[in-house]
Amino acid sequence: MAEGEEPPVSYEDLALIEAEFEDVDTEIMRKQYDLSAPLYAKRTEVTRKIPNFWPLVIEQAPPDIDQWIQPHDSRIIAESLLNIEVRRPELDNKGSGNPRSVSIKLEFKPNQDFEDTVLEKTFWHRRAKDGWSGLVSEPVRVHWKKGKDLTEGLTDGAVALWEARKKTGDMTAKTLPEYYALKKKVDSWNGSNTSFFTWFGWVSGRRWVSAEESEEANRMYLESKEKRMKAAKSEGDAAEDTNEDEDQEEENDDEAVEVHQAGEELAISFAEELWPNALKLFTQAQDDDISEIDFEDMDTDEEDEDDDDEPIDIRALVQDKGGKARSRDSTGGGAAPPSKKQKKK
Amino acid sequence: MAEGEEPPVSYEDLALIEAEFEDVDTEIMRKQYDLSAPLYAKRTEVTRKIPNFWPLVIEQAPPDIDQWIQPHDSRIIAESLLNIEVRRPELDNKGSGNPRSVSIKLEFKPNQDFEDTVLEKTFWHRRAKDGWSGLVSEPVRVHWKKGKDLTEGLTDGAVALWEARKKTGDMTAKTLPEYYALKKKVDSWNGSNTSFFTWFGWVSGRRWVSAEESEEANRMYLESKEKRMKAAKSEGDAAEDTNEDEDQEEENDDEAVEVHQAGEELAISFAEELWPNALKLFTQAQDDDISEIDFEDMDTDEEDEDDDDEPIDIRALVQDKGGKARSRDSTGGGAAPPSKKQKKK
Repeated sequence: MAEGEEPPVSYEDLALIEAEFEDVDTEIMRKQYDLSAPLYAKRTEVTRKIPNFWPLVIEQAPPDIDQWIQPHDSRIIAESLLNIEVRRPELDNKGSGNPRSVSIKLEFKPNQDFEDTVLEKTFWHRRAKDGWSGLVSEPVRVHWKKGKDLTEGLTDGAVALWEARKKTGDMTAKTLPEYYALKKKVDSWNGSNTSFFTWFGWVSGRRWVSAEESEEANRMYLESKEKRMKAAKSEGDAAEDTNEDEDQEEENDDEAVEVHQAGEELAISFAEELWPNALKLFTQAQDDDISEIDFEDMDTDEEDEDDDDEPIDIRALVQDKGGKARSRDSTGGGAAPPSKKQKKK
Repeated sequence: MAEGEEPPVSYEDLALIEAEFEDVDTEIMRKQYDLSAPLYAKRTEVTRKIPNFWPLVIEQAPPDIDQWIQPHDSRIIAESLLNIEVRRPELDNKGSGNPRSVSIKLEFKPNQDFEDTVLEKTFWHRRAKDGWSGLVSEPVRVHWKKGKDLTEGLTDGAVALWEARKKTGDMTAKTLPEYYALKKKVDSWNGSNTSFFTWFGWVSGRRWVSAEESEEANRMYLESKEKRMKAAKSEGDAAEDTNEDEDQEEENDDEAVEVHQAGEELAISFAEELWPNALKLFTQAQDDDISEIDFEDMDTDEEDEDDDDEPIDIRALVQDKGGKARSRDSTGGGAAPPSKKQKKK
């Protein structure tokens, strides 16, 4: 480049700005979870008293979630789902830690389909050595009752491969009998997911990334970013040599044995759409005449499960027929504050 | 209610929790704009050097925006749009003020369609006395050149009614000639919006709300909320009498003279989708083979307008073909840090 000539804008310049925006987002996410955690706890306290709160919310779930729920899944959810909790397991209370990792816990009544009353799955936000970043998760076994496995062996197969790989110490090993067995199952499934619950067997859109690899990759990434930012400030071309690590292409994707096609997207939709908007979706469910869940019958069905709950008149909750659910980050508000109306028993 | 009996959950309980979530959102929004303002300034500095940056971003706009842009609007945008800026005019630098008000400024090259080189519209987030809250905006005149008015008189009509109402001192006056004239235009338009630029004439999804009314309504709202929260803590039914102000129904909606059907939604989409995701949308435009905007030709066309710009090789900006744009609040990251690659002149 000629002396004194203004360097043109490069993709690098834009990428550096994007990286700075991402740092701000991380800080904002931390702040947000920190401030809203006590409110979510309060909400859970209240919604636990409302029969079928979560089944009704899920009935109104956005398409990102709804498309993965089959009719037999809906039946289990309507009959048995008691509670959902979303946590950010890597956030400590000093306002540091990665706010993008997320734990999703589903609580169920004892039911005819599986032994579990809690299914909890943690999605870790990690960076691979080649620069890829995203969510990864250990597969969670669903203890299906005999003949009830809606995933047709996919969650069991994912857990079996996981355990076998742990024994070998190589989390991408491809020469194990469990690998071939699961690959065959995934092949025969042929792209059409059989059940929402296969999600619990999901590992990664790419491959498993351990905490150690992620820590090392983050360190390299930050070093490289700092070098590039310094270089960008001094001279245009000086940062050419910082990309050696990132050019190591990897070919050990684990797609062939992945049991769910959109595990990451589904986790994000649960954490960022369903969880923050649950009250709005619930209100919307009340306004929706075509609701298939008969919560009044359900109420009497579950009396032996919910020991300390008062029966609740859900219709009394929905006097305000105004607003449909809105995204929380819109202008908010909207409808007038509702009147205090409740029926007595 | 019988003594000692636990009160059932009421819609009021849920609404109070929602109100608390909204307070947290407000605080988070303030923090977010505060932290990201310098980054947006830096981004503008860089993107001003990229010919057709904003036309290419708008070409990739989400459906919420795209549906309001007609082919003749696209032509103006492709030929003349130089820059977009989004500000939060009510935020001061002490971290207070309403973060939901938004100013959207579009800068244009001198062009054959209108005299303006800047069209700026401010959307104020306000509360009406009956409890409604949302965005309202003063209509902005577009100084169309003779015979070029794409809005077919709608923006002029909106401004004329606004001025006439200001003279009477009644911003919802319905007995003015300007009211009948505009109503007739809106009726004849019959629901099919003729141009994106009618947006500049938009006032409200409801009716205009002045700063004074909003201040008074917010004061009432906060008082009422505090009363209800105290009441909710002490006893279930005690807050019955706090709703008198909110029950005052209003019938002076201004729908009959509103020139744009979705002015608020469009403002929110500009501020919360297009603006934060502009770099991602731009990258996406580069990856998109069917782009209709020929930025290389455009580059030479505009040389007389852009005095201090270096010609830029946009293709050099898009070496990374990996990720499509993602919502900023997803797990972020995704692609590997891109290589430093730029072509010399």
